[in-house]
Amino acid sequence: MTKTRLEAFSDGMFAIILTVLVLELQVPHLENNSFAAFSAGLIQIAPKFFAFLFSFFIIAIFWINHHAILHHIQKVDTKLLWLNIGLLFFSCLFPFITAFVGDYILNPFVVALYPLNMALASVTINALWKYAYVDTDLAPNNLTAEEKQARMKRDRMALVMNLASVALAFV
Amino acid sequence: MTKTRLEAFSDGMFAIILTVLVLELQVPHLENNSFAAFSAGLIQIAPKFFAFLFSFFIIAIFWINHHAILHHIQKVDTKLLWLNIGLLFFSCLFPFITAFVGDYILNPFVVALYPLNMALASVTINALWKYAYVDTDLAPNNLTAEEKQARMKRDRMALVMNLASVALAFV
Amino acid sequence: MTKTRLEAFSDGMFAIILTVLVLELQVPHLENNSFAAFSAGLIQIAPKFFAFLFSFFIIAIFWINHHAILHHIQKVDTKLLWLNIGLLFFSCLFPFITAFVGDYILNPFVVALYPLNMALASVTINALWKYAYVDTDLAPNNLTAEEKQARMKRDRMALVMNLASVALAFV
Amino acid sequence: MTKTRLEAFSDGMFAIILTVLVLELQVPHLENNSFAAFSAGLIQIAPKFFAFLFSFFIIAIFWINHHAILHHIQKVDTKLLWLNIGLLFFSCLFPFITAFVGDYILNPFVVALYPLNMALASVTINALWKYAYVDTDLAPNNLTAEEKQARMKRDRMALVMNLASVALAFV
Repeated sequence: MTKTRLEAFSDGMFAIILTVLVLELQVPHLENNSFAAFSAGLIQIAPKFFAFLFSFFIIAIFWINHHAILHHIQKVDTKLLWLNIGLLFFSCLFPFITAFVGDYILNPFVVALYPLNMALASVTINALWKYAYVDTDLAPNNLTAEEKQARMKRDRMALVMNLASVALAFV
Repeated sequence: MTKTRLEAFSDGMFAIILTVLVLELQVPHLENNSFAAFSAGLIQIAPKFFAFLFSFFIIAIFWINHHAILHHIQKVDTKLLWLNIGLLFFSCLFPFITAFVGDYILNPFVVALYPLNMALASVTINALWKYAYVDTDLAPNNLTAEEKQARMKRDRMALVMNLASVALAFV
Repeated sequence: MTKTRLEAFSDGMFAIILTVLVLELQVPHLENNSFAAFSAGLIQIAPKFFAFLFSFFIIAIFWINHHAILHHIQKVDTKLLWLNIGLLFFSCLFPFITAFVGDYILNPFVVALYPLNMALASVTINALWKYAYVDTDLAPNNLTAEEKQARMKRDRMALVMNLASVALAFV
Repeated sequence: MTKTRLEAFSDGMFAIILTVLVLELQVPHLENNSFAAFSAGLIQIAPKFFAFLFSFFIIAIFWINHHAILHHIQKVDTKLLWLNIGLLFFSCLFPFITAFVGDYILNPFVVALYPLNMALASVTINALWKYAYVDTDLAPNNLTAEEKQARMKRDRMALVMNLASVALAFV
């Protein structure tokens, strides 16, 4: 398994996940051809549309981070491969969870699934970074021990805030 | 982020968007095995089919333009990356809007969404070109200041005509 | 537009079209957990399944032919690009037509759409070959005039048989 | 047909198959915004979710094996090409069979389709390995005759266990 292959495969999946998101947008039923019916239709799909918009940019950010992390990786081993598959697994869940939240935007338990899945994807991508940059020499780099500690601390902080927003869903 | 990666990712998304378009074509219900029932079925899906045909070629043109623009780009920075993601976002909306127009071809407000989305995609791809070819040296080129002005003027004209066709939807 | 790019884009679309085919296979409704209900379910989806199986191999053959043709192509011009997009357009229609035939296997007009679409896709891929190998020097080759004539004759024969099978649908 | 092309095409299909799996996960209907309704919804989709989770990792493993096998392959001939298309065909069926099992988890005949399809995919990938590594010199390697025999024996054992689990579905 070369890095190029892993990147191409991950790129393919991120591209498909982004496109599949829009499949969840259903054409609304319009009563007639008036502007009132059109507006009502747009309002009806508004929660789904904003869930789509939000997820599109969240997944784009994961994709950008994924690339930044893989940039310095020289070798791929089995554990890195499975961490990557784990990240793709949680990324794959976004279209389903986005549709779920779009349908039940007022149910706090459903809404909480979203930051929960983001947290799981973040834990995986952070573990992937730590494995390649800190635990092994898969990604040769010039980062000092302090810089590595700082990044891991920042990742933990982001995770805490993410999990805090799970709680926010219930407010 | 290298240019090759960005191109491959964008190619992947354009390929998926083109294929997803056809998923909106639903098999019509036919009353019986007669030619009359078959014709009625074809007439029923005709608006969707022509919306699909039209979108297929519109997105193909965006894809060709995207390649022409990226051809001279040597470096990718964060702003270019996000302009590209913006273009992919509006491109992603085409299958949904195509299906919406196919269902409500007589509703002018729905029909107007189509040129509106095209205008948004055009603004984004023009901004991407201007950023790489005029504002920065990401795409080294031999274009004179006049040629650059001429292209930007042409892009603005195309945009005005595009927005004018939004008005046309109401005639 | 380089050949590599065109190939990658076409490969992407063929891969998606093959996978999208299976999305048309709907899980049948089973009355209970008996073998009789299971058999009835399988019989119910059998036409769709065989339409899927058939289309999978037809599209695979188009993909293999596409590669064989592109193998010697050195340059890509605008006309070749649009012939290729035309081929991808008809290829994109296969999942829809496969589902249509799977639903109305007894309607000869619906069934005739299948060889009709194959004929249109064949005309396009043959035109692409002729344009690159005979009309222009986009694909430098050692074929003699006789060999080129023989291939074009063979392509025409295949097309006639294809169109004859449109008539067969009505027998 | 070069190996690179075949790999890219197969990677594309595996990536799409993994993502298409999640499309089978339907948003459940929730009665109200209570935790009880949310739990009931999760329980309702639990069989589909675990079928999705299981299939995701099964297909990931096929993808990893596919890469390991193609790693030493130097040339691609027509038979190898069709063995590969056969493998992609059975891989394509996983999303459909996963949805079928998710809907009828209590029907042993439906459940038995899953290991049956796994067995067919395994037979194909093993035949692909044997063809490239043993029968021909498409994949030059240093494996001794004993090592090749050992692998083929292991593959047969795995297949027997796989088919045994078809029987297990009826227990």
